Amino acid sequence: MAFKYLSNIPLEEARNQFIEALISAGLQSETETIKTVEANHRVAAEAVYAHISAPHYNSCAMDGIALDASLTYGATDTRPVTLREGQFRWVNTGDPLPANCDAVVMVEDVIEADEGSVQLFTAAVPWQHIRQIGEDIAAGDMIIPSYTELTPAIQGAMLAAGVLEVKVIKKPVVGVIPTGNELVSPQADPQSGDIIEFNSTIIKGMLQDWGCEPVVYPIVRDDPGLVTEAVRKAAGECDFVLLNAGSSAGKKDYSVDAIATIGQVILHGVAIRPGKPVVLGFALRGGKVIPLVGLPGYPVSAILVMDELVRPAMNLILKRADEEKLKVETTVSRRLTSSLKYLEFIRARVGNVNGKLVAVPLNRGAGVVSSFVKADGIIEVPQNTEGYEAGEKVPVSLVRKMEDIDKTLVITGSHDPLIDELIDLMKIQWPDSQVVSSHVGSLGGLMALKRGESHLGGTHLLDEETGEYNKSYVRRYFPEGGVRLISCVFRSQGLMIAHGNPLGITSVADLAKVNYVNRQKGSGTRILLDYLLKQNGLEPSQIKGYEREEITHTAVAAAVASGTADAGMGILAAAKIYDLGFIPLIWEQYDLLVAEKTLEHPEFARLMKVMQSPEFAQRLEKLGGYRLNEPGEVIL
Amino acid sequence: MAFKYLSNIPLEEARNQFIEALISAGLQSETETIKTVEANHRVAAEAVYAHISAPHYNSCAMDGIALDASLTYGATDTRPVTLREGQFRWVNTGDPLPANCDAVVMVEDVIEADEGSVQLFTAAVPWQHIRQIGEDIAAGDMIIPSYTELTPAIQGAMLAAGVLEVKVIKKPVVGVIPTGNELVSPQADPQSGDIIEFNSTIIKGMLQDWGCEPVVYPIVRDDPGLVTEAVRKAAGECDFVLLNAGSSAGKKDYSVDAIATIGQVILHGVAIRPGKPVVLGFALRGGKVIPLVGLPGYPVSAILVMDELVRPAMNLILKRADEEKLKVETTVSRRLTSSLKYLEFIRARVGNVNGKLVAVPLNRGAGVVSSFVKADGIIEVPQNTEGYEAGEKVPVSLVRKMEDIDKTLVITGSHDPLIDELIDLMKIQWPDSQVVSSHVGSLGGLMALKRGESHLGGTHLLDEETGEYNKSYVRRYFPEGGVRLISCVFRSQGLMIAHGNPLGITSVADLAKVNYVNRQKGSGTRILLDYLLKQNGLEPSQIKGYEREEITHTAVAAAVASGTADAGMGILAAAKIYDLGFIPLIWEQYDLLVAEKTLEHPEFARLMKVMQSPEFAQRLEKLGGYRLNEPGEVIL
Repeated sequence: MAFKYLSNIPLEEARNQFIEALISAGLQSETETIKTVEANHRVAAEAVYAHISAPHYNSCAMDGIALDASLTYGATDTRPVTLREGQFRWVNTGDPLPANCDAVVMVEDVIEADEGSVQLFTAAVPWQHIRQIGEDIAAGDMIIPSYTELTPAIQGAMLAAGVLEVKVIKKPVVGVIPTGNELVSPQADPQSGDIIEFNSTIIKGMLQDWGCEPVVYPIVRDDPGLVTEAVRKAAGECDFVLLNAGSSAGKKDYSVDAIATIGQVILHGVAIRPGKPVVLGFALRGGKVIPLVGLPGYPVSAILVMDELVRPAMNLILKRADEEKLKVETTVSRRLTSSLKYLEFIRARVGNVNGKLVAVPLNRGAGVVSSFVKADGIIEVPQNTEGYEAGEKVPVSLVRKMEDIDKTLVITGSHDPLIDELIDLMKIQWPDSQVVSSHVGSLGGLMALKRGESHLGGTHLLDEETGEYNKSYVRRYFPEGGVRLISCVFRSQGLMIAHGNPLGITSVADLAKVNYVNRQKGSGTRILLDYLLKQNGLEPSQIKGYEREEITHTAVAAAVASGTADAGMGILAAAKIYDLGFIPLIWEQYDLLVAEKTLEHPEFARLMKVMQSPEFAQRLEKLGGYRLNEPGEVIL
Repeated sequence: MAFKYLSNIPLEEARNQFIEALISAGLQSETETIKTVEANHRVAAEAVYAHISAPHYNSCAMDGIALDASLTYGATDTRPVTLREGQFRWVNTGDPLPANCDAVVMVEDVIEADEGSVQLFTAAVPWQHIRQIGEDIAAGDMIIPSYTELTPAIQGAMLAAGVLEVKVIKKPVVGVIPTGNELVSPQADPQSGDIIEFNSTIIKGMLQDWGCEPVVYPIVRDDPGLVTEAVRKAAGECDFVLLNAGSSAGKKDYSVDAIATIGQVILHGVAIRPGKPVVLGFALRGGKVIPLVGLPGYPVSAILVMDELVRPAMNLILKRADEEKLKVETTVSRRLTSSLKYLEFIRARVGNVNGKLVAVPLNRGAGVVSSFVKADGIIEVPQNTEGYEAGEKVPVSLVRKMEDIDKTLVITGSHDPLIDELIDLMKIQWPDSQVVSSHVGSLGGLMALKRGESHLGGTHLLDEETGEYNKSYVRRYFPEGGVRLISCVFRSQGLMIAHGNPLGITSVADLAKVNYVNRQKGSGTRILLDYLLKQNGLEPSQIKGYEREEITHTAVAAAVASGTADAGMGILAAAKIYDLGFIPLIWEQYDLLVAEKTLEHPEFARLMKVMQSPEFAQRLEKLGGYRLNEPGEVIL
């Protein structure tokens, strides 16, 4: 297959080309008539008018008596009016108003007298305590205009107005075709080592949330004929087809040819990152337009293309308005460089730290689907822009509610699994608790706190001269004060090595002869390594892999477990997870560095409470390699 | 049955009593393990940890060649490095990194040379274009803490991390029991005149949206034994039971006794309006706590009790945080009086008119479910507060997105069905259009515009002296200008009377001898009536029913159609809907009065466009009784 070149059309232009091509080809929505009781969240295909009035009779609104109000005129506390049997009727709430009555007096105001007569001490006002015909809705009134999403209240109003059936937009059936030789369906009882196909689950969920009816087809091998046949079959059965992976221009990318064979390609390649390799096209089935989209294979790319290009096209069919995300102005925590060639989408954590909205960019890798798990919003770096400087004001489109972001406690600092355990314990006790954590290393956390970008962070910074942890750093970086150091744990740091220690590593001195995997600059663990190397008379240049960086203990452990590194420094808890060998080197002090203002944060009080709970001690016991160090005690 | 008295416990206290009683009785959530692919929107019952790293092998991130980076050191534009076969491997994106390789060079940078050798003009950096093991997630990492609602992205991350099954909170099965002699199920092919039970549809939809599994039971007749048996059956089959109607203290209110018989009543009666008559209780089924709630019969009351009392209890089971609605400060458009005894919930339209947020209270009737269709937010008037004055700053809890409210065109003025038709035509052409309308009469609309509470309004105000419409009012009320009058239609006003005119009404003069139904003060139609009465030498006091007010043409028509009034003034279109007799009196001029700033509103441009469209003319033709009057022309 020839090498193909992708176009690089700006997003807005690509979206318009796609939409206009579909419209001029004659894209239509289909409708169906369903029972009103089943119509929650469906979109009305036409305006709905009341068939009958609600209520459709004058209805008593109170338990009491119904009467002709004029009989009560002149009644006062001192000169009650007496009504004899036949001049009034006992009624319950909801009863139709009896003939010749125009008012209801509630039971509490009716004094029963002799022989079925009653006394009233106040005159009734005509039409009091009556729900008049059409009080809610009058027959003929428009209840909702076309293309309104139905809600339980609208369903109720429609039923009250006698509308038992409603014409709605039929849910488009959307075929999702995963492709790839190496992939195994999560439904197919995957074995260890299998590469699980998960994009279709993400795509299916998004489609369902939009109001579509997704159909996930079996995984298709990387074969041009098979891919084309799969698209042909789906285009024959569905209203919209999404082909996932193979949308680029590589040797095994067959989407564009398959779409060109079945229908026609509108464009191939959009100036966005991630998401550039996308194919937009359509086929005709007996005059019906079936949009065909080749989605990129990386999950982050696929999600972005779904949001930015597939959804607007789907909304044409669904008759829904494009959803605009709330955009807020934030301060970006670090420099973001971006290519001039692309509009770039960068997922970010957003935190409100003492009234300042801060965006912390997440891992930009197109394969890092967890960035969408953690994201509070998306930063868009426009095409023809080189990026943003740290501290610059940057708009972020939120994917989480602003109210939740405002309440969230932002933890930024050294990685330790105990932070996640604390967050989990908080959620268990208070399901409304809102805490997020980012791993940027001890020094990174200290700087984030200094810049007012976090509420607190874990820290384990060794002072080489004094052998003391954290305190000297705090004094140096916060000469003006404003922070507190809170005691938490001691933890066992050491060398993580392959199970059984086949290379016979026994100490830091042995690192000169093996493949090492390091932690990022500014992490306490790297500072510790540097200190130990110096003690052992070693230079960083003597350590192979010194430049290979991971940002968590578990990522280092994973590298060692995979055999691509022979040793890395980390905590016992991480080594245990991967069943690695472990050479303990030091018990280090892991504290929390907290801004003074954070002490007033409601979530911080909760954090302290769980940190001192027996459940936390149990979790540490299970992780292994910890000793409690009077957690919660303010030590500086 | 004895007369029962309701307590009047403040909402907050009632909620706490209910929650605490359920907790101390031992309310539990149940869990179940389901496939990750089926878990969208479910709530994780425990923290989820990665089983494997994602990726779980070092993976090539580009199409190109894999190699040992050190082989390329020193390569420059002028001194390329040549690698022979065996020193590199061709790879595709996603391939595992071959052994002894630590970098990938992308195909665009590889120059193929003789005999399978390649040239590189730049040195490779170790680990470039490689997705390292655990780049996304490392085995052992916590993907989400307990009680997180799963999303498609989370499902993707879990599958990527080898988590194929997940323990989630089991959806509570919630029994909904409608009661009432007069009610017919909407599912049971209701006949004309039947009173359709619709509350259970509303309740069912709310429960589904919260993540519950509702079961609607057949309608139970108003019989204490039958009601008790129904509750007993549901409490035996469900995790939570809602009994709808009969929760008050009247003769036919059996909820409290049924709940007391099956289990125990925690409290009966809460100091809210609407919603006061509510029963909160629970039963035990083999030690399992089954909350039992008697909901009030009026739909508005039932919805409020669902939101304020049922949902917090359900969230205990669902492990969800109570949702807080966004509260915004608004200017309330008219005086709101409220009882000191109750916390009152008043549904309101909220509009942004030139930056000023205005809340327009809707019909407060507990039976007016359409108020929830129209509501943008809820005003809470606290207990022990007499209400608010017009123009006062009042907080509103929004039920619609602020972004949508900000874009909405607010029409406030005279009622005419053509306004709804215009809104529908706008929605059809632009599904994202946002327009709301309120009927407050011509004068009410004029005053709302003057107070800056609306963008425009329909108006048909007759100047008795000149016989001219609208212009003199505009000059009098807006001496400083700032508004424009825009021409729309002429419409036929007349007397709506029973079909066949059995009373032989022929003119306004005949109104003295029949039952009349009037429009509200300030409506153009009432001003017209007053003018015609004066012309005929009649006083309002001579017209029986002059004080009976409806606020729309269709509501007046409904009153006449029902026989509770003999005549009312209105437009031909309304008479036609109800197949009434109609005595035409006048062709009146119906214009739009528009603030000058509104001319810049994007939705206004759309409104003008559809007002001048052939589709609008067709709709008027169908309604009957209209003549186009150069719609869109600025006449003042």
